[in-house]
Amino acid sequence: MIRLEIPKGHPRYESLKRREALIDFYEKGIVTVSGLISHGRGEAFDYIIGEKSRPFAIEAEKAALDRILNSRNAVISVNGNVAALAGKEIADFARKFGVTVEANIFYWSKERMEKIVSLFRRMGLEVLGMNQDALIPGLDSNRGKCESAGIFSADTVLIPLEDGDRAEALKKMGKFVISLDLNPLSRTSRYSDITIVDDVTRTFRNFLEFRESDYSGHSSSFNNASNVKEAISFMADRLRSLKNWPDL
Amino acid sequence: MIRLEIPKGHPRYESLKRREALIDFYEKGIVTVSGLISHGRGEAFDYIIGEKSRPFAIEAEKAALDRILNSRNAVISVNGNVAALAGKEIADFARKFGVTVEANIFYWSKERMEKIVSLFRRMGLEVLGMNQDALIPGLDSNRGKCESAGIFSADTVLIPLEDGDRAEALKKMGKFVISLDLNPLSRTSRYSDITIVDDVTRTFRNFLEFRESDYSGHSSSFNNASNVKEAISFMADRLRSLKNWPDL
Repeated sequence: MIRLEIPKGHPRYESLKRREALIDFYEKGIVTVSGLISHGRGEAFDYIIGEKSRPFAIEAEKAALDRILNSRNAVISVNGNVAALAGKEIADFARKFGVTVEANIFYWSKERMEKIVSLFRRMGLEVLGMNQDALIPGLDSNRGKCESAGIFSADTVLIPLEDGDRAEALKKMGKFVISLDLNPLSRTSRYSDITIVDDVTRTFRNFLEFRESDYSGHSSSFNNASNVKEAISFMADRLRSLKNWPDL
Repeated sequence: MIRLEIPKGHPRYESLKRREALIDFYEKGIVTVSGLISHGRGEAFDYIIGEKSRPFAIEAEKAALDRILNSRNAVISVNGNVAALAGKEIADFARKFGVTVEANIFYWSKERMEKIVSLFRRMGLEVLGMNQDALIPGLDSNRGKCESAGIFSADTVLIPLEDGDRAEALKKMGKFVISLDLNPLSRTSRYSDITIVDDVTRTFRNFLEFRESDYSGHSSSFNNASNVKEAISFMADRLRSLKNWPDL
């Protein structure tokens, strides 16, 4: 695989660096081929959004953080793409706020689970996932595996880059579901109580930068349906604004 | 890699089958990791378009076909993703109309070139690409390689799923450039004389289905800038129409 040197001044520097990181983690066996395709979908939506955390995203993030910190047992679910894109930020976040992280992957293999758990261990964070003793109802055995001490008993789950079936199943278990997905139209986005339409790395960086006064109380006043509508409207408007041709 | 059985009635059946084909061709060494990410980007734009050939696409396709058939030496450039997604349709098209096809890839390797050429040979079509004796000016030696009997001397080139640098370099050579890209905002789309905003498989199927009276004369009246604007407006409108929440 040929790597191009990405100049720091490139307008899409962050996005191109993220893509490179993902390919590295694919080569390490943490990201799957399916994960690469998913990432491309995310890139397209982020391109339309303009690769920035927009006001609707910031608002959802404040509500999410407030909710997570007021939960009895909030768990962050981490798959291969999430570990590759924002492993460091998630480890920092989990340490700062004492939130549980659980490895949970769509294409299950023991080896890939171990690699994700080891990745976080090397960053000084112990994550759940190697003792999957429970099953999310409504999913087949490979997809539903989770830990009774983690996702299974959590009251709030943050599911970045998650599959729609799993989001729906978690919702049916009565959990408060916070999704993080650049596609506001995805089933995952639709099933969530709080839908964050933003990039996973930017979101965790924002979580780390907010002061308590920024987010405190934001979960009670948050209206998810209208926030998602705002995200979709923003994207439609931005697409339309890019229409001037050929001086794009 | 676990494969899910995709039911024929699934609303996104065609898209999911295409993704599966792409992964097969990745495993065969024809598609690259970078190609998988690119495909994801295309999927997102196609999702917004609604996974159908819309009127702006049909109009661009008619103009493109008219232009190709009235060229002295039109060449279709084929990379790994294009071969994987629409190899059969392109072979049928090239045979029906006697149009030259040339393998031309972004991450060059002799092995991958041979695999693409062999793939077409097995479908009964000889394609150029194994005798790269010329260089597109302005590109480095690996990216600029092409055949003097093919892309180098072509008056018209159809470049599906092409990189922006190469599209620009071909345009600077004075060629009539027809692009095929689901992202109407890409540099490739911007540099083209005719920009087809459609899926590559659907486009070649449409080429094969048009009768002469459908497309004859359409290249002279075609206005590319206004057609691309129409594509972008359509996408913005469709996004906005998908806003109704939660009854998406």
